[in-house]
This record gives sequence, C-alpha cells and structure tokens, in this order.
Amino acid sequence: MTVRAAVAGASGYAGGELLRVLAGHPEVEVGALTGNSNAGQRFGALQPHLVPFADRVLEETSAEVLRGHDVVFLALPHGQSAAVAEQLGTATEGPLVIDCGADFRLADAADWERYYGTPHAGTWPYGLPELPGARAALRGSKRVAVPGCFPTAVSLALVPAFAGALADPEAPDAVIVAATGTSGAGKALKPHLLGSEVMGSMSPYGVGGVHRHTPEMIQNLSAAAGRRVSVSFTPTLAPMARGILATCSAKAAPGTTAEQLRAVYEKAYQDEPFVTVLPEGQWPATASVVGSNSVHLQVTHDTDAGRLLVVAAVDNLTKGTAGGAVQSMNLALGLDEGLGLSTIGVAP
Amino acid sequence: MTVRAAVAGASGYAGGELLRVLAGHPEVEVGALTGNSNAGQRFGALQPHLVPFADRVLEETSAEVLRGHDVVFLALPHGQSAAVAEQLGTATEGPLVIDCGADFRLADAADWERYYGTPHAGTWPYGLPELPGARAALRGSKRVAVPGCFPTAVSLALVPAFAGALADPEAPDAVIVAATGTSGAGKALKPHLLGSEVMGSMSPYGVGGVHRHTPEMIQNLSAAAGRRVSVSFTPTLAPMARGILATCSAKAAPGTTAEQLRAVYEKAYQDEPFVTVLPEGQWPATASVVGSNSVHLQVTHDTDAGRLLVVAAVDNLTKGTAGGAVQSMNLALGLDEGLGLSTIGVAP
Amino acid sequence: MTVRAAVAGASGYAGGELLRVLAGHPEVEVGALTGNSNAGQRFGALQPHLVPFADRVLEETSAEVLRGHDVVFLALPHGQSAAVAEQLGTATEGPLVIDCGADFRLADAADWERYYGTPHAGTWPYGLPELPGARAALRGSKRVAVPGCFPTAVSLALVPAFAGALADPEAPDAVIVAATGTSGAGKALKPHLLGSEVMGSMSPYGVGGVHRHTPEMIQNLSAAAGRRVSVSFTPTLAPMARGILATCSAKAAPGTTAEQLRAVYEKAYQDEPFVTVLPEGQWPATASVVGSNSVHLQVTHDTDAGRLLVVAAVDNLTKGTAGGAVQSMNLALGLDEGLGLSTIGVAP
Amino acid sequence: MTVRAAVAGASGYAGGELLRVLAGHPEVEVGALTGNSNAGQRFGALQPHLVPFADRVLEETSAEVLRGHDVVFLALPHGQSAAVAEQLGTATEGPLVIDCGADFRLADAADWERYYGTPHAGTWPYGLPELPGARAALRGSKRVAVPGCFPTAVSLALVPAFAGALADPEAPDAVIVAATGTSGAGKALKPHLLGSEVMGSMSPYGVGGVHRHTPEMIQNLSAAAGRRVSVSFTPTLAPMARGILATCSAKAAPGTTAEQLRAVYEKAYQDEPFVTVLPEGQWPATASVVGSNSVHLQVTHDTDAGRLLVVAAVDNLTKGTAGGAVQSMNLALGLDEGLGLSTIGVAP
Repeated sequence: MTVRAAVAGASGYAGGELLRVLAGHPEVEVGALTGNSNAGQRFGALQPHLVPFADRVLEETSAEVLRGHDVVFLALPHGQSAAVAEQLGTATEGPLVIDCGADFRLADAADWERYYGTPHAGTWPYGLPELPGARAALRGSKRVAVPGCFPTAVSLALVPAFAGALADPEAPDAVIVAATGTSGAGKALKPHLLGSEVMGSMSPYGVGGVHRHTPEMIQNLSAAAGRRVSVSFTPTLAPMARGILATCSAKAAPGTTAEQLRAVYEKAYQDEPFVTVLPEGQWPATASVVGSNSVHLQVTHDTDAGRLLVVAAVDNLTKGTAGGAVQSMNLALGLDEGLGLSTIGVAP
Repeated sequence: MTVRAAVAGASGYAGGELLRVLAGHPEVEVGALTGNSNAGQRFGALQPHLVPFADRVLEETSAEVLRGHDVVFLALPHGQSAAVAEQLGTATEGPLVIDCGADFRLADAADWERYYGTPHAGTWPYGLPELPGARAALRGSKRVAVPGCFPTAVSLALVPAFAGALADPEAPDAVIVAATGTSGAGKALKPHLLGSEVMGSMSPYGVGGVHRHTPEMIQNLSAAAGRRVSVSFTPTLAPMARGILATCSAKAAPGTTAEQLRAVYEKAYQDEPFVTVLPEGQWPATASVVGSNSVHLQVTHDTDAGRLLVVAAVDNLTKGTAGGAVQSMNLALGLDEGLGLSTIGVAP
Repeated sequence: MTVRAAVAGASGYAGGELLRVLAGHPEVEVGALTGNSNAGQRFGALQPHLVPFADRVLEETSAEVLRGHDVVFLALPHGQSAAVAEQLGTATEGPLVIDCGADFRLADAADWERYYGTPHAGTWPYGLPELPGARAALRGSKRVAVPGCFPTAVSLALVPAFAGALADPEAPDAVIVAATGTSGAGKALKPHLLGSEVMGSMSPYGVGGVHRHTPEMIQNLSAAAGRRVSVSFTPTLAPMARGILATCSAKAAPGTTAEQLRAVYEKAYQDEPFVTVLPEGQWPATASVVGSNSVHLQVTHDTDAGRLLVVAAVDNLTKGTAGGAVQSMNLALGLDEGLGLSTIGVAP
Repeated sequence: MTVRAAVAGASGYAGGELLRVLAGHPEVEVGALTGNSNAGQRFGALQPHLVPFADRVLEETSAEVLRGHDVVFLALPHGQSAAVAEQLGTATEGPLVIDCGADFRLADAADWERYYGTPHAGTWPYGLPELPGARAALRGSKRVAVPGCFPTAVSLALVPAFAGALADPEAPDAVIVAATGTSGAGKALKPHLLGSEVMGSMSPYGVGGVHRHTPEMIQNLSAAAGRRVSVSFTPTLAPMARGILATCSAKAAPGTTAEQLRAVYEKAYQDEPFVTVLPEGQWPATASVVGSNSVHLQVTHDTDAGRLLVVAAVDNLTKGTAGGAVQSMNLALGLDEGLGLSTIGVAP
C-alpha cells in the first residue's frame, strides 16, 4: 500500500517536521507541498534541511491542489482548517484529513469561543492514541485532530494519576509549568523570538490561565478524573529550538504511596511503544527525545508537600505534532501504528 | 573608608563572581584569594575573565591567610564554613565573615541535619535585606549567612503574598518550578553538566522535596505566613550559564483580587532598589538581570485555577549569591546598601 | 566635570549597550534617549534590562532633542549620521559627536561608494586608540568614528604583525574567519536571526569579500604594513548573543620566529589597559570578555604552514562598539581613558 | 541479508550515534554493546535516548565478545584499535572491522608518530567514498578506517578545487578555520567542556598546526593536488552540541573564474547522494545537516583577495563519524550505499 500525502503549510516548522517524518515512512509518497506567503519559491530555500524536496516548488494552498491525495495534513494557522477540510470531502469519502491546528480539538464550544474568539467548528477524533478510548476512535477515521504539543506532554503525564484516583479526587488540581523550545512559537518574526533575545534566557508567557492549550488540558484531565480538574498552566520559553519539559503536580489522594504511583504508571504504559516510564531515580531530559516520537516520564510523591510529581519530556515538533500526526495516520489507515516513527532521540 | 576583603574559594563560580563585584566596589580592596585543589596556580589560568587579578597566585585556604582582612567571604563547599569562621574571630571582634555556603542559613537543627547530614552549626543573620526584619539584623553584624540562590528568588516572589494573606491562610501551599542556569551547579566535573549534555536540553533534578533549598524556602515563607507553608519545589536545569526563573504559585485567599495583589507587591517593593515589579503585562526574562543585582517580578491571579502566580528572575550568581553578599556587606559595614552594585543586566 | 550625553538609536542593541556603559560612568549624566519607530514608548518595554531608564520615554531622533548635550552618541542605521551630525554643530563648536555607524570610518571615497552605495560623507578621527597615531587624533576631537566590531578585533590582532614586518612584507595577505554573536546583526526581524534558526547552528554570511567591514580592515592593516594588504574575510554567525572570535592568519616573513612574534605583541600592548596578550598556551574565549572592554589575544607561528596565527576575542557590543565609543569619548573630553570601563568579563 | 553488528565503545558519543544509525538500518541487527569503565551498567542509564537498547547491559570490550559478529565497529580511544582488530581475524576472514578511531587513517608512518606518539599500525581503506578512488577500495574490504570529522568536511570542501587545479598549483595552500560542536571532544570530563564554559562562548584549540587531523587533511588534499599542499588548520569550539562548519580557502589559480569553480563542484558531486552543492547565494548552516549523512557545500571566488572560498557543513557525529562508517559498511558488504542513511537534517 502506498499512500500519497499532501502537506499544507509545508514551509513552517510543523510542516517541515511532517515532511521529515513522512520521508522516512515506508508506505508514504509525498505529493503536494503548499503554503501561502511563500508560494512559488523553491522549497530548498525555505527548508534547506529537507534535501529530497529541495527542488520542489511550494504551491498555493487550495482544495484543487490538495484533492487527489490519500492523506492531507493541515499545518495552518488556527481557524483556517475548517474551510479547507470542508472542500476536501466528507467523513466517509475523500482523503483522510489530519489537522495539526487547534480547530477540532475542543469538545466544548464555549471553551473554543472563549480562547479562540471564533465560532466552534466541531470536534474530530483526538490524535493521542495513548489516551483511554482514543485509539479505537482513530482506527478507520477520515478525520484527526492532532493535540497541542503541551496537552500531549501534560495529558500523558497526568492522566494515569487522575484516572487511577491517585490524585486527590475531592478537589482535583494540577499545577503545570512547562518549558518549551522556541520552535513551538513558529517562524513568526517577533522581537522576543530573535536569537539574541532567547539565547541565555528563560521567560514565561501566557501566564495566569490564558494560554490556549489550557482548556485542552482541562478537557483531557477532567475526562480521566471523571470530574472537572482545575489546571494552573504556565508555559516558559527556553533557550533551545525543540523540546518540552512539563513539570506537573497534583495533590495526592490520601493514602497514595510512591509504590502505587509507580505501579500505576508502569501498568498504564507497559504496552505503549512511544511512552517510557524511566527506571526509578532517572529523570527525563528533553535532549533524549529530540527528533523522536518518544515520551519520557518519571513520577514521585513528595510526601512533605502532599503532591504527586510527574515530569514528561517530548519533542514538541515530533511526538508533540508531526510524529503524533503520523502515528494517528497509521491508525486511521490501518497500518502498523509505529510505521515510520522512531523512539530514538538525536542526542547529544 | 577602604575595606580589605579576602575571598576563600576564589576559583569557583561564586568566588569569581564575588571578585567581579568587589572589583567594581569603590570602597573595597581585594586581598587574599584562596582555594584548595588549585592553590599555587596563576589566577588568570583559573578565571581568565578577571583580568585585574590575572597575575595573582591562588593561596591555600587557611585562617592565617584570611586573618587580617576586614571582610572574609567564604565560598566553600557546604559544611566547611563553620571551622574556618571559628578561627577568624568572634561575633564582636575579628573580620566580618560572610558565608556564601548553606551552613548558617537554617534556624531549625533538625531541618539542617535531615537535608545536610551533619551537625547543625548555628544560625547567622540572613543576607536577604528585602525580607521583613532582615535589614535591621544585618546592620553592624559581624556574621552574614547569604541565602541560597533559589530561596532568594522564591522568597522575594512569595513573601508579600503570604505576609499579606493573599495566599490562602488556611492551608498555605506553594508550588514552585524554577529553571536555573548551569553555573548554579558549580564547576564540578559531572557528566550531566557537560556542554554536550546541557545545550538544547531541559531536565529536572532534586524532584520531590529533596533539594536542599526546600527547607530554607519553607522557613522564609512560613515566617511570612505566620504558620507552616507547604512547599513543592522542583528545580530544572536550563541551557544557559546564568539565571533563575522561578515560577511560583499558591492557592489564593478567598476574595483576593488581581488589583489587591498588584498593589501589595508594588507597596512591598516600592523602596527596594534591587526589586522591580514590572508594569502589568510585562513578564520577567532572566537575560534582563544577568550580571546585575536586580530581581524582576510579575504577578497575576488565575481566577479559574484559584491560584496566585508570581514569576521572579534573578541572576543566581549575582543577586542570588555574590551581589546579595556584597549588599549585606554594605549593610554590615554601615556603607550605602547599593554601593558597587548595578541594577542593569548585561543583555542581550 | 559632569558630561551630559544623549543616545540616538537607544532602542537598538548598540544603543542599549551605550546606556549600560554610560550608566556606570562617574562623570556622565544620561540625557535624551531617542529612536524612530519606537518613539513615544516607555523605555522599560524596549530595554527591560536598563532598569534606571525604565520610566523614560523614547523621543523622536532630531537635532532639537539632541542639541544641548555635551556628547551625542549616534547609533543609527548606516547613512543617517551625516545629516544629524551636520545639524549639531561643527568640529569646533557644539557637542562631541560619536558615530557608532560606518559613515565616517573609511578614508577612501571609492571604497565607501563600492560597499555602501551612497556618496562618501567624509572621515573622522578613528576611535580605536590602540592603533598607532589614533590616540593623539582623538584627544580633544569633536568627532569620533567608532570602528566596526570586526575591524576592532582584527586590527588589534594583526596590526603589530604587519607593522613589525613579521607578516610577509612582499605579498602581505590576511585570511580571517570571525565568528560573531547574533547581536552583531541587530534587532532586525529577519528569519535567519530567529532563535530557532541560530541555536545549535553555525553559518557564514557575506562570504567572498563582500562584507562591509572588509575595506575597513584593509585600510587599517595596509596603514600598518605600509602597503596594500590583501584581506580574505569570512564572518560566521554563532549561537551566542555576544562576542567575536577572530581567527586571523598571515604568511610569515622569512626568518620570523615564535619568540620574536610573542615579543612584538607583548611590547605593542604592554601599556594598553584593554588589551591582554595571554600567557603562552592560553587561548582566548569570548565568554571571558563578555560585557567588558577587554580584548584577549594569543599568537603563534605555524612553521609547517608558514603562517602566523593570531586569535582575538572581544565583545562586539562593548569593546567592539559602546565600550570603544566611551573610551574614545574619554580621550576626546580629556578624561582618564578608562573611566567607566571594565576589563572584567561577565563569566561564566 | 541480515548483518549482525557489534559496537565497541558504545557508551561514548560516537558509539551512541552508531547505534542510532544502525537501529534504522533495515539489514542490520545490533549485537554486543561493549565499553570499559561503564561495563556492567544498564545501557539506558548511559544513553537514555537509545530507547530500544535501554535494557541491554554494557559488556567489557574483548575479542571474545566481539567475535561472531559480521561487522565490528570500533569507537575506541586512539591507539586501541589495532590490538582488538588483530584478534578479530584477518583481512580475508573474520568480521568486517570498521575503525572510527585514527589508527589506520594515515599512510605516512612519520606523520603518525609525530602526531600520535606511538608506532604506526598501518593503513586501511579510507572510508570517505566521495574521494577519488575511495569507493572502489571500500567495496568488499574487510577493513575500513573512518576519516576524522574535520578531514571529512575539509576534504569534501577542497578536493575538487585541488584536483581541478583551480587552486593555485604552484604553491598550493589551504587556510581552514572550522567550528565544531562540543560532542567532537567526546564525553571526557574536562573543565573547559562544562556547559557553563561553552555556552555563549567561542574559543580555538589546537592552534598552529598541532591538531591531529592536520596531517590527514594534508594527505587528502595533496593526493588531489598531486603535490604537497600546505595546510593551516584552526579548530574552534562552538556553543552547540553537534555540527562542523568548515570555512576553507585557497589561493586561486590564475584565470580561475567563479563559473568554472561552480561547474567543477557541481560536476564533482552531481552523482553523490550525500553531498549537496547549494544553489548560488545560499550558504550552508550546520543545523540543516544535524543528524543526517548530508554535506552541504557552497563555493565562491573572492577576486580581490585572490582566494577561492569553500564552506562545508556536516554533522561531526553522523557524516563525520557514524554515518560515514555505515556508508562504508554498506559498500564493504555490497549493500546499497545509502541504506539506513538519511539526507534530512533535524531542523530547526
């Protein structure tokens, strides 16, 4: 089976990572590469690391160009996916459409409108196969909403604790501080993203519950907990290009022990090819997962503070975006879930 | 008035920063530079950035060498300061002794023994003048315990909230995730501190309440709150040489408003030359305080999560160690508190 | 004597560094801060590290605003200094004008026109006091042309070799590869300057003799050699915010020995407060000079290749721009040349 | 065909990269992983990014352990390969032995002894297939000497110019300044390799012709030129984990034009899958080749200076070591040369 895949938004960081992953996928042939502001340019000038595509020319994003592929990946600015998807077919015919944007992630229309300010476009099967129930919904689906990079890390870090009632079920809270590499902010030309500003510096942004990934985390953690989980989420910008380190904590349920905690996490992920619960005492480092579809996790219980601590490392562009998207594509197409994906990071 | 100052442990990062600050102090003349493993070496080979001291030779750390100075700074491994201090005189005669190590920071002997594993040496006036009562205790003192770098950032970030009862007084908690530059770990030759390992990577360490700065934070925050504050503290290692970004939160007291919060912080620090509460909407970046004695703070209230958020940026080596030490020296000697200290960071 | 200084272009990296240096100068009071695109903004939003100026408001650059100061520093885009300078007075009356731009560096009008494409504005005394004859020309001058950052490093590295005829006087050549921190490129919003692009990457630019600092190097080296020196200059962009490492070589004159070479350099710089010829075997690192006005040099002779090697490290913003400018200001005003300038780098 | 491969020195950076590449090779099964100081440890504690090997245990390096594989990769300290290779068989029977160390790279025994200080062990087919004649010698060979990382970049950059007599054939010289990521220095615990020292800093080392890769470059360039080429080589340490940017120049032969130069390079590499001569005006960046087996090249002619400029970017660990080793393995075993190797860098 050879699958022809198009990438809309191919000149951005997410689009580039999709191409890097797809180029190594044994069943995929890359078709159209599209973009808007850069349409007409030689692709090698835009993404010089993608040697096999260097001589391609970026086309204008349009339904005409994207149609006729088996899979269409959308790596567009938030709010643009719905219109394109509609023109590509329906949930029963036409190509598999995989949206790397936020448009179809949130089930609650009010949440969407509050955080994104536009009408809610709907909800698609959620591309985080490791969540309870997600894998089944992805199999055979014609639509996939790829999770945000932070919610990927945070959900994998905290869902077992909430699902297993190890986190206090009475007043479930989560306090999350997550450092991200600058590629998470995209290629936008903003002063605070200049190399001179980010090198040697850490800074927070979207503090106080205003980051758009917050409702997505609440949605996933609340589903696991069976009641609304309160989430305090602070992202910080770190002097590195890739990677997320999510430091997550939640009040422990009375009586929770460290052994229980460890056992629950090991059980939760024992059959997951892309999630590694590290041996006791070894903590994740983002460098270990760069360029891979791996998630590294470690857990502990701070009995003095009465909080469970879970730290997750992912590559925001790979497992956090493009790798997760291809993992979901594999499921949707009935291929082996891990095809074309590596668990090995590019370290050091 | 010219003050002759010695630095014990001059070949390390804290010692080097002390010399950098002291070299710019108009009332200080630098006397002996001592160390142990590197004694006898030309100083310029050890700390090439300290040009004015390049031709000095590092002496062996001993009471003989240190005696005869007006001020002795100790930048020694934890547990070594007490023995040296004892030989230098008493709290009424002999030089002013300023310990950049942990030995005299904790009031509670049990805390000390639990975290450091040796007998408690005592408690000295605490070198964080911005804390309530601290300035008075430092004036004229012959002994100063310089705070840890993380407790400096975290205490300045959270003390006003706890002192002002804006953080929930019923069950006061603090959840802190603080990213630090690698100089915080010193010059020890450990594999995880190699450039190849730290560049492009974020990783946590001392997770789960085991970091030695935890009891110091609890001590400071509890003093402010008037009851024991629970602290969950997770340090992370960031790919930068200097700087701490402390992201701190605490459950808000019922009825706390964002305006109140802001007003309390602005009032708390309005006369503090080294603490800047940034204008609303502007968040701290560690690069802005590198090489300076400044602390940059910002606060907000996440009403959905019911938590106060305070972010502080400091340079772990300057305000977090050497700058704070010199600020305390100025107070102890009756000099202008800000002499020789800059509020300006070396950015970009 | 208190000198009132204005900075035009205060929101850029050179302007910010001028303010950082001037704030520590005991005889300077900072007057107007001007800019164009950002005029009217609170200065703290533009340069948050410059705490003492945070509440100032950036004014529009104009002769009205700048006039009435004793010194005016121009940190403007190339080609804009001449017009402003003209309105500020003459070389005998009006303020001292110090141009950090390129406009008045080149003596040869043809060189200027070839590299900058506009009519030549003239030549001012060259603000590199360590060059033969430069100090005398700067004393009492009302005009200073601050050298380019690369020519500062390269001229100090190679002038003694050419002046002393240690570099082959028959066919004097210089091959220079100089790595620079990204602040050298300014705050312009260009894709290749984004943090995601520069972190973890080295790349060359302006290759093949086209960089605008090339004729300035040729001018300085040729003056030293007494005949035209051929210069091959390649700048590279390094993943750091500040610093230049200039690796310079030239064919050795027949019979030149390593001892001679060392002796010539030590003699050339023995009385220079800001130039350090490192002890044999110790090579410069840019981190050692960050934030300082120091130049670190080392020399050797590769007898197999028949080339002299000289490596220089400077901070492009300090000695390479703002520190050099203030050093020249001190000379022009008859102050102690080193006033307000530090030889100590902010390391690590 | 499934090939069983052992890696000796698996806990180092070169060894880890070999495993990363081999894990993606469709015809390779990884056998023994050996080391010395770390033997007996769980591999996941040493190389956490290599998830598929995490539960392996590092064995002691010995002929017993290595024997019985089809291919043995040696990533040992210089001088240790000969003894191991001897015990593994001969050039006609026993496993294919691929030495990532220097032991068998130099043809000239005097060169070896001068630079390495031990007796010369011999010369093996040189694992840089893109050099004239190299590919033929590698096909079917039982022994491969993997080139040094700098000579890989520099030889590919300059051989066409010397082979094509575009570089001055009368007095062939090459001046090379090459920046390398810190992984090139290995995992040795040396103070100057600490993250605090390398971040934000550039520094040279091995200046003046003393770096051990110098004779290897001279060997390769002289073979191309048909006479001894003089080489001035200066390596610099850059604040990044991976990558080499080699800036190379040579005096141009009289009459050489830029068009000729470009044509010669395009022709030289038109059929090479791993060497890309970038389109005119686009210069290499190391980030574009990180983790890949690609070499990016660009050339120009500085007619003022009379020098050809060639810049090459490679990943020191991939094409510069492990990728080049696997490429040579493929040739030696009669497999498709590019099997298991990617041309795509992990960017940004």
